[in-house]
Formats: sequence, C-alpha cells, structure tokens
Amino acid sequence: MIVVLTGGTGGAKFVDGLRQVVPPEELTIIVNTGDDLIWWGLYVSPDIDSITYVLAGLLSKERGWGVKGDTFYCLQAMGQLGQPNWFHVGDHDLAIHLTRTQLLAEKKTLCEATREICGKLGVQARILPMSDSRVETRVLTPVGELSFEEYFVQRWYQDPVQSVRFAGAEDSKPAPGVIEAIRTADLVLLAPSNPITSIGPILAVPGIREALLASRAPVGAVSPIVGGTAVSGPAGILMASQGLPVSIAGIAKAYHDFLDVLVVDDRDAETATQLRRSGFRVHCTRTIMRNAESKVALARAVLSVMSAEKSSRTASETP
Amino acid sequence: MIVVLTGGTGGAKFVDGLRQVVPPEELTIIVNTGDDLIWWGLYVSPDIDSITYVLAGLLSKERGWGVKGDTFYCLQAMGQLGQPNWFHVGDHDLAIHLTRTQLLAEKKTLCEATREICGKLGVQARILPMSDSRVETRVLTPVGELSFEEYFVQRWYQDPVQSVRFAGAEDSKPAPGVIEAIRTADLVLLAPSNPITSIGPILAVPGIREALLASRAPVGAVSPIVGGTAVSGPAGILMASQGLPVSIAGIAKAYHDFLDVLVVDDRDAETATQLRRSGFRVHCTRTIMRNAESKVALARAVLSVMSAEKSSRTASETP
Repeated sequence: MIVVLTGGTGGAKFVDGLRQVVPPEELTIIVNTGDDLIWWGLYVSPDIDSITYVLAGLLSKERGWGVKGDTFYCLQAMGQLGQPNWFHVGDHDLAIHLTRTQLLAEKKTLCEATREICGKLGVQARILPMSDSRVETRVLTPVGELSFEEYFVQRWYQDPVQSVRFAGAEDSKPAPGVIEAIRTADLVLLAPSNPITSIGPILAVPGIREALLASRAPVGAVSPIVGGTAVSGPAGILMASQGLPVSIAGIAKAYHDFLDVLVVDDRDAETATQLRRSGFRVHCTRTIMRNAESKVALARAVLSVMSAEKSSRTASETP
Repeated sequence: MIVVLTGGTGGAKFVDGLRQVVPPEELTIIVNTGDDLIWWGLYVSPDIDSITYVLAGLLSKERGWGVKGDTFYCLQAMGQLGQPNWFHVGDHDLAIHLTRTQLLAEKKTLCEATREICGKLGVQARILPMSDSRVETRVLTPVGELSFEEYFVQRWYQDPVQSVRFAGAEDSKPAPGVIEAIRTADLVLLAPSNPITSIGPILAVPGIREALLASRAPVGAVSPIVGGTAVSGPAGILMASQGLPVSIAGIAKAYHDFLDVLVVDDRDAETATQLRRSGFRVHCTRTIMRNAESKVALARAVLSVMSAEKSSRTASETP
C-alpha cells in the first residue's frame, strides 16, 4: 500500500502520474482540507475535488483544477445576481459540491461523503480527507486574516504574508483510516505540494506527524521547489514567511524529522550534494510534469528510489 | 394597482402579456408556492421563478419555464453522480435557487428573498409569495401521496387523483403585503391558472379568500379551460377529481363567491350564454396565447372588460 499526502495542483499532477503506474487498490491519498470553504452555501473542498477528478479521469489538465470541458454558466448567472464570483465553480463541478453538501446535511462525515462520491464516479483508489473536523488555513496579511482561497484565488497571493495558522487543528482528529494507513503503509509519499499550506495543515492534525515519525515505511517527498522557486503558486512566498529557505533545503527542513528520501529536480543537483552531506538521501530526476509522459516518468522514478531505500533498509536489517 | 393571482405556465404567459401593457410599478403578482420543493438541498419555488423570469425578460418561451437559452450541464453531472434528475434545473436557473437558499439560511423570509432577487434582476413589478410559511400541495393517488412536482413532473400526471390537500395551509398566514394589496387594488385578476393546484393553494391561505370577498375592486378570472379541456397541464384532471365540471362553468363554480367577471375563449360562447343566465358577467375573447401578440391582445381585452365592469359599478353607484 502506497500512502500519499497531498494538496494543490502539483499534488494532483503527481497523483495523476501515480495512478497510471500503481493499481488503484494500492493507493491511499490523504488530502489537505485546510482550503475548504463554504461557497454559495455549499461545502467545497478544493483539494479533495482535484484528487477525485484526477482519479476519475475528469480533471481539467489545462487548468489543473475542476472538470475538463466544464462550463461556467451558473457562475455567470451568480455574477448577474450580485453574488461573489471570484472562486470559479463550473457547472459540472457544482454537482459534486451540491452532492457533498447534501450528504453533510444528512450528518454524514466528510470521509463518508468523499467515499460515496468516489463510489459514484468509479474511483477505486482510497481518498481520505486529513480530518473530518474543520481545520481552516488562515493567512495573516496587512489587509487582515484571510482564508486560503481568499488569499490565493481572490487576491492572487499578492499580499505579504505575516503568518499562517490552522484554525481548529489542535482540536481536530485524523479522519478514520488515516493513522492506520500510515502505520501499515509500504511507502509514504509527500506529493510536490506546498509544504506550508498543502502539507502543513495535514501535519497540524494531532497524530499525523507522530504517525509519520513512527512509520516503518520509508517516507519520501518530491520537492515543489525547483531551482530556488516554486514550480507554481505561492509555495516560495509562504515558505519564506515561515522562515524556511526557498530551496530544496527548505523542503528538507520542513520535513526533517520524518523524511527519509527527498526527490528533487536535476537542476538542484548542486544543492542536493550539499544536502546529502547533512545525512539526507536525495535523489535527482526530472520533476517538472508538463505532460502525461513526464508525470508517469516522475511516478516511476519516485517508486524506484523508494524501492531502493526499502531494499537497503531490509539489507541492513539482515544479519 | 392591478393585483394578479397566479401559478403555472398559463399564469406566466398571462403576466408576460400584462407586463407589456401595464407599467411595472402598477403590478403586484401574488404567486402560488404550493409547488415549492427542496431539490438537491436547495429551496426551489417554481412559480415564483417563472414569474421572476417573465418579469426580468428571461423566461424561456419555448419551454414555458426556466431561463431562455439555459444549459443543463450540472443536471447531467448530477445524474452521473446518481442524484435524482427528473426535475430539470438549468445552470443559469441554479443561480436563483442557490441565492434564495442562502438568503433563507440567513433567516430572511421567502418574501424578502424574492424581493432581493427581483432587485438584482431589475424586476420592478412586485412579486409576493402567497405566504412566507410552507404550504405544500399534496396529491393523493393510488401510489401514495405525492408532492405536486412528483405528481406533475416526475410522474407526468398519469396517476388517478383521489384528493388534493394543502399541507400547512391552516396554520399559514398571507405574506406581508398580500392582504393590503388585495384590499387596495383597483383590479384583481386570476390568471388562466389551474384552479385546484395553482390558485387553490393561494385561496387556502387563511384570509386571502376573505380579502377577495371583501375587495371593492372587481375580480376577474381568465379561464384555463377552453372548449371543455385544459389548455395545458392537469387542470382538467384535477378539477374533475374535486367534483368540478371541466368547463368554464367549473371555473365559475370554483370562484363563484368572489368572482365578478369571467373571461373565456370565443369557443366557449355557447356555455358563456348559459353562464350569464345564472348571473355571471362573462366575456368572450381569444384566450389562447401562442405568441407575443396574442399575449398582449389578451391582456388588453381583460383590462378593457375589467375597466367596463368598474365603470358600470361607478355608474350604478351614482345617484
């Protein structure tokens, strides 16, 4: 069983590669829900949606979010009604939000709602929200504290970030199955997701970081930082705001306590060499996922290095 | 001030004619809400929607309901998710349901939500739901008791109707402004709507029938029955189920206690003559609204006969 921690568009791309080289029943995806928002009265879970769409083969590859070929007529009409329209919900996309909102109104958990929706869409891999409780990523900026989607989508991550917190995290619990999945995994992978606001919220749920520390499986991460900048989105800005170097060293630092293998881009070979001196196993490969082939190639490369890590552990355990 | 009681597609067509010959600020439309339903977790008010779309110039004239040129991508996606999809909600249409549902969740009344939506869509005429309380038209059939939309849309009004009731009516109150509008109207018109399930629920709200009886304004109705059958929909079946003749005489009987003028189709001239003998003022004209011209012509004819009724009253009051 391969367990992946993910959030954001980089994570969705990585999962898109993995699903093509790993049987779905061997994949458990633990997903960030810190970006979840109530939009038009509906419960929207952007990262769960992206992973659901990826695994259902529905994700728009052009946009990296939402449903391929989706239309935006309801959004347009909402704008005409004076409703907020900065968060782009497609007409097809709306169906998942309406369905989830109804399931939650029927007192199902986010975990149960996710499972039910996945079932309807024929998704065979297991998608687990990090928690059934509400954990909200809040970004403090000079204009005030913003939700992640306000910061990221509405305001185009233009505001200087003073701090980031995960409201509700202390009182949250991992969703059923999360700890067990990590405990019994053969491999744990952190997708090339923003370490602050995609992986950060997951690690803020009490018990998850501890489970990673305790895991017998090797834990690998793919760096979302290439050549000193984020491949996409505000990862760099957010890392800097948290005092992390915007580099693969920053990623290594964010995960230092539980990480076994860091997969970085060939362009970071030099920094990789330095990192290795500090005791990290660092593997260089092409990490930019521009098309289907590069996604599959990255997935294969990551599985291969993780397998090597596993073998070397087994070898060292052999008397 | 002209007050119109309406429901259904015939009513929407009639209002479409009226709005072209009467300034919007002189129109108050009191609308049936007995068909309202919770659909995909959203509060849908089919008759309020139709009247709103008519007055905003948005109604699909081909379908007689919903928004012209609307698309149905969300509906399609809901079907793929295994959600019910027999009630056809368009993508544009969804916006009004989402907006209303949010306003109601904010504890606004249906009346306030309607006003707010009308304001956004530039509707200047006043639309009043018959009541802010939930009154549900329930149709008893051999397969069980159905909501109106289940009976009408889901099951194509194929089930024999044993009885009709308006659940919640006894405890309901007219929406704010309804009684005052009837009391101070210059004319009251009943649209060519189904007398059982479009006008019936309105009359079942305590105080509305009494207000019509007490009104000093002449009350006119346009018959939805032409030549012994309903122009559209289940009006005939439902009238028969309630022991009313399926004819203009049945319409006269349904409204006998407060009606002053009945406008019927030329094809019913013979029955009209008989009706007049029993003391009713009956006016014959073309009532079938096939296009914009016939809608306007009917509106003009109705206003003209109502004006004659008003003058004759004034004359008879003159010493």
